Amino acid sequence: MNYNQLFNLIKKKKSFLCVGLDSDIEKIPAFLMNSGDPVFEFNKKIIDATIDFSVAYKPNLAFYESRGVDGLKSLQKTIDYLNGFGDEIFTIADAKRGDIGNTSRQYAKAFFEVFDFDALTVAPYMGKDSVTPFLEFENKWVILLALTSNQGAADFQYFENKDSVKLFREVLRKSQEWSTKENMMYVVGATKAEALTEIRKIVPDHFLLVPGVGAQGGSLEEVARFGMNDKCGLLVNSSRGIIFASNGDDFAEKAGEKALELQKQMEKLLAESKII
Amino acid sequence: MNYNQLFNLIKKKKSFLCVGLDSDIEKIPAFLMNSGDPVFEFNKKIIDATIDFSVAYKPNLAFYESRGVDGLKSLQKTIDYLNGFGDEIFTIADAKRGDIGNTSRQYAKAFFEVFDFDALTVAPYMGKDSVTPFLEFENKWVILLALTSNQGAADFQYFENKDSVKLFREVLRKSQEWSTKENMMYVVGATKAEALTEIRKIVPDHFLLVPGVGAQGGSLEEVARFGMNDKCGLLVNSSRGIIFASNGDDFAEKAGEKALELQKQMEKLLAESKII
Repeated sequence: MNYNQLFNLIKKKKSFLCVGLDSDIEKIPAFLMNSGDPVFEFNKKIIDATIDFSVAYKPNLAFYESRGVDGLKSLQKTIDYLNGFGDEIFTIADAKRGDIGNTSRQYAKAFFEVFDFDALTVAPYMGKDSVTPFLEFENKWVILLALTSNQGAADFQYFENKDSVKLFREVLRKSQEWSTKENMMYVVGATKAEALTEIRKIVPDHFLLVPGVGAQGGSLEEVARFGMNDKCGLLVNSSRGIIFASNGDDFAEKAGEKALELQKQMEKLLAESKII
Repeated sequence: MNYNQLFNLIKKKKSFLCVGLDSDIEKIPAFLMNSGDPVFEFNKKIIDATIDFSVAYKPNLAFYESRGVDGLKSLQKTIDYLNGFGDEIFTIADAKRGDIGNTSRQYAKAFFEVFDFDALTVAPYMGKDSVTPFLEFENKWVILLALTSNQGAADFQYFENKDSVKLFREVLRKSQEWSTKENMMYVVGATKAEALTEIRKIVPDHFLLVPGVGAQGGSLEEVARFGMNDKCGLLVNSSRGIIFASNGDDFAEKAGEKALELQKQMEKLLAESKII
């Protein structure tokens, strides 16, 4: 999916919601455990219940790898199911990979060819040649970690040079030498909504993937106020707040309600910004 | 495996060699392709041919993930086979993970429980709470990226604060608040052998995992000269230089020869430092 297709999808669905499939087998409803692949069954029902309100889905690799080979089978079925919806959704592997060139190339093959995601989250620590192998695939995206939503973000992302430039700003600046808004986005934690103003000065046109609305505690209104641009420029993720809204028989219904609630707020924000 | 066990293993085998299992299915000998799991068969023969000369094995996750579910099956068989050797070897998952706490916890479960590796490489960008979940497992190790061997290392790892402290030094300094030499090592690229002097001032007692000897071009003598401490304190990795020494019928024999060659050099270096 390219930049314009993503923008059109946002206008069509009146939403910039990403549903995080952090599908912890220990938290999914007990009655699903009798099915052959409980995590895939869970994901399928979540996807069906939320697809009208969401533009993106983001499986978190850790929750699949923690079940070894079986977990990867659930992931394969999930991405195959998502890809059945074609250009109705944007798919993100939240894997935070990044390694020397020949190794990043193998990760790119894994996520862009074998699993066929649209985008992959990438960690910047190893620099240019750890990131560029992911940029060689047409209509595939790198979502580079800039400023994350966790407490530890302060440890190194705020490391400051003599001109008071913090590392996350340097990541934003330097990575633009490698790519454009057409194939790169940035992760920006929603707990730092005011930092979005500063970030928008460096990357006015890029899409930002914003985790941390919901369980991690950010405010959607603030994110839109400080982070939205004239092409929306935002994908806002909610994981636990949607997928674990209920752990009863009604889990999918409740997930759909939560997603609809966020979509309605997003529609309002998009209208206020005259995007729709 | 704990710190003393690892040191004793190095003395017993007179080696600090780590064999990198970057087992690219496109590079393994053609005649293996007829077996049920060519990558596992390849790994098994490489392990058998090198085990007397190596203290550690390091599968590189990218080369398994790039084959999807089948790749993970090869990885599972490989680590099961390695674990059959018990405390004769130290096993490292080269996966460079790191995410918010609840996600890192799932990765820890994957690599320390499901696959049961001794150690995992971790990327520091997201800070303390992305690393500490990996430190809660007895006799399991974090190998934190400090200074990597690739060209892109200069992009952010050399980012310098007003006191001329580079980011990789800050990673070394700060991470010692979270752990000790008993459960943390650092990745230090061998192409920067002289940087080892500076690094040893900050982490005199920790083990360092040094990639980049061989195909990536570092010198073993220099690494030992600048990096060895009185408990050796080094694991030096070679991947392609050993496992792809030949792509004919004699691939395992040639791998064994290359590993023996490195072990002999290491024995000499250990003797010169009066460690053995």
